[in-house]
Amino acid sequence: MAEPLKVGLAGLGTVGAAVVHLLDQGRDKIVARCGRGIEIVALSARSRGKKRPFDLKKFRWVADPVALARDPSIDVLVEVIGGAGDPAKRAVETALSAGKAVVTANKALLAAHGQKLAALAERHRVALNFEASVAGGIPIVKTLREGLNGASFTRIYGILNGTCNYMLTRMEQDRLSFEACLRDAQALGYAEADPTFDVEGQDTAQKLAILASLAFGIKIDPRAIYVEGISSITLADLDAASELGYRVKLLGVAVKTEAGIEQRVHPTMVPKESAIAQVMGVTNAVTMDAEGLAPITLVGPGAGGVATASAIVADLADIARGVRNAPFGRPAARMTAIRKAPMQHHEGGYYIRLLARDRPGTAATIARRLAQQNISLESIVQRHAPGSRGAARPGRSGEAVPVIMITYATSEDAVRKALAAVRRDRVVTGRPQVIRIEKN
Amino acid sequence: MAEPLKVGLAGLGTVGAAVVHLLDQGRDKIVARCGRGIEIVALSARSRGKKRPFDLKKFRWVADPVALARDPSIDVLVEVIGGAGDPAKRAVETALSAGKAVVTANKALLAAHGQKLAALAERHRVALNFEASVAGGIPIVKTLREGLNGASFTRIYGILNGTCNYMLTRMEQDRLSFEACLRDAQALGYAEADPTFDVEGQDTAQKLAILASLAFGIKIDPRAIYVEGISSITLADLDAASELGYRVKLLGVAVKTEAGIEQRVHPTMVPKESAIAQVMGVTNAVTMDAEGLAPITLVGPGAGGVATASAIVADLADIARGVRNAPFGRPAARMTAIRKAPMQHHEGGYYIRLLARDRPGTAATIARRLAQQNISLESIVQRHAPGSRGAARPGRSGEAVPVIMITYATSEDAVRKALAAVRRDRVVTGRPQVIRIEKN
Repeated sequence: MAEPLKVGLAGLGTVGAAVVHLLDQGRDKIVARCGRGIEIVALSARSRGKKRPFDLKKFRWVADPVALARDPSIDVLVEVIGGAGDPAKRAVETALSAGKAVVTANKALLAAHGQKLAALAERHRVALNFEASVAGGIPIVKTLREGLNGASFTRIYGILNGTCNYMLTRMEQDRLSFEACLRDAQALGYAEADPTFDVEGQDTAQKLAILASLAFGIKIDPRAIYVEGISSITLADLDAASELGYRVKLLGVAVKTEAGIEQRVHPTMVPKESAIAQVMGVTNAVTMDAEGLAPITLVGPGAGGVATASAIVADLADIARGVRNAPFGRPAARMTAIRKAPMQHHEGGYYIRLLARDRPGTAATIARRLAQQNISLESIVQRHAPGSRGAARPGRSGEAVPVIMITYATSEDAVRKALAAVRRDRVVTGRPQVIRIEKN
Repeated sequence: MAEPLKVGLAGLGTVGAAVVHLLDQGRDKIVARCGRGIEIVALSARSRGKKRPFDLKKFRWVADPVALARDPSIDVLVEVIGGAGDPAKRAVETALSAGKAVVTANKALLAAHGQKLAALAERHRVALNFEASVAGGIPIVKTLREGLNGASFTRIYGILNGTCNYMLTRMEQDRLSFEACLRDAQALGYAEADPTFDVEGQDTAQKLAILASLAFGIKIDPRAIYVEGISSITLADLDAASELGYRVKLLGVAVKTEAGIEQRVHPTMVPKESAIAQVMGVTNAVTMDAEGLAPITLVGPGAGGVATASAIVADLADIARGVRNAPFGRPAARMTAIRKAPMQHHEGGYYIRLLARDRPGTAATIARRLAQQNISLESIVQRHAPGSRGAARPGRSGEAVPVIMITYATSEDAVRKALAAVRRDRVVTGRPQVIRIEKN
């Protein structure tokens, strides 16, 4: 039998520990599948003294991950340190430059430097695999890179952040406010002490940048992505969505338009009966549309030690079998610059919730401003405050009443202009809520 | 640039024609992704004179597919002839023996001879790829073979036959009988003139045999599968399922039990809110459970020219890039004999619909027979015929009334014995309907 593949593991958090466990437990299966074993020969982590769920003494310890990366005894570096900067970046660069394959779960690193790292891997003819970086347990990277090579993608979208989906699910099911739900998610360990990166959509954007590159052959650039998080979503929005036949999800969407590739992350209304609307809790999902093909959807665990480690082991197994693909499915030199479709040109349906001053002429003013931008309404619902109901002459109280509108397909630009005009007219209070609708 | 990969295409039905089209249209993308082109150099089909959607003159014609398989000008044979016998079998064997890779969509051939063909491919060190053979547009073969190598599967199940799922969807949504729905499906081309192979579950069984082999490393054997089709399903069953919170799907299920691998195809009640219950029409879906992992579900088009051809092109792209995996994820010699778990040992919940004679003692008799087999009921619903409703003494008419029961987990053996006893007691008319429940 061939020599086992020798792995240096940098990072010993939940994922790193699960990799150690899976490789140990799956020994026979790996040999059966790859014709050779996969063995961790050296480890690196921040703290050597920390208690671990396995016997540290079985492995050689290399304090510096960069030294581990160039260690002559390893064939592959598994990088689960995280972060776009050093030491993760230097460790990965060092390994590739030394002709060693790299398996990483580091989305931040790939989003920031994926292009250069892919070119470096190519130059040294080694694999750079990163299945674990997006939607942990779902083999979406392999599917895009190898599984659907015959397809011409037109759109890819998904639920890529488990924290946000968990929160939206809990808000809807348990009728919690965003704030209450966030406290809960933090207590359960589903949200970080500083949740900004997750709830404001940045995590989703990094993952979307990687998927869009794989699907459309474009250079990775998270800065080309329009990003909006879920912190402004209220229970009132979820209720209105439900009544109208929708559910709200934080989606990352990349779509081919005539103007170029549109990449955006924002709370989105999806039809309740769609596959993606059924995805609840911390689960992730990705849907791909391609020319002439019905949509393909992958649903599964987005995070967690075993799910992520299982993706890393699959990446290692490919390397053990001598498989080396271009990291982003094509040579780095053939990845094209993004022709970015500006968000103002986005076209689709919109949900708009306004707090309108309840006095004569308000409805007419709003209607006129929308009409001036050629926006047609599919539905409009105005709710009077409980106190004003049955009043002799409704609409004289001057109180604010919610007005909920669903538009037919229109443009982002038109919606922004119409709402700016409505606000200037002083017929609404507060900031209008706008949620884009994504049809399947 | 490297020489293009030279393909011989055997079979020019919908799928074959779509392969010609996709390879032509996707030329640039393929070169970008594989570093070389993929070119069809010769064709074979039953009738040369038939009208085709492309110019036949652009390709060399080889009347005999077996001659095409050994043609020195080709590197790969694409077999889309179909059928477990010759000429498909001989063509594939000939190509492999001549050291040529094979890409096939032929589930019948793989189910019957997959084991031997895999060994032959291995011996000659060539690829045998068959992504298109199961769930056309869904990359499930690659996912099982390469994408989830870190996972230890415990169960795999899915909707693998578009015809059946289309029919069950139409029956439920349009309130059609099985027969009316079948006529409709035939008129639309979704069902064959002889629908037996699809509606009686054989097609699903062949696909399940392939998936079970990939997931559990067992030898392919469709004869180890318990098979029941959907022809006995009535609208009454679908309505009762819906009331109880379920939907009926024809599933192929392979599950690891203590007694061995249980493989079965039958109409199944799945919880309405499960991902698989949302899969409507001709769409296919596969769910995988693995140790320590949340379920992973893939949903997409199960058939159709473009979907199937796109899977074939992905298989060809792997070959063009020099990737060769063991056909079933591990060397043929390491595929283990199936330890078949007998269907009588199957454990789970059951839906039972009886037509009970409406007279005193019937309910007691049924209850006693179930109790004798230690079967506990989660729910029981008895519906009186409209005529008997409000009668002074219900239960004296002697007419048949439907009784619908949902059991807690019990065994197939217990259910069969209890129902045989109930029938011997002559308290029911007709054959009891039994539908197994699959929890997610």
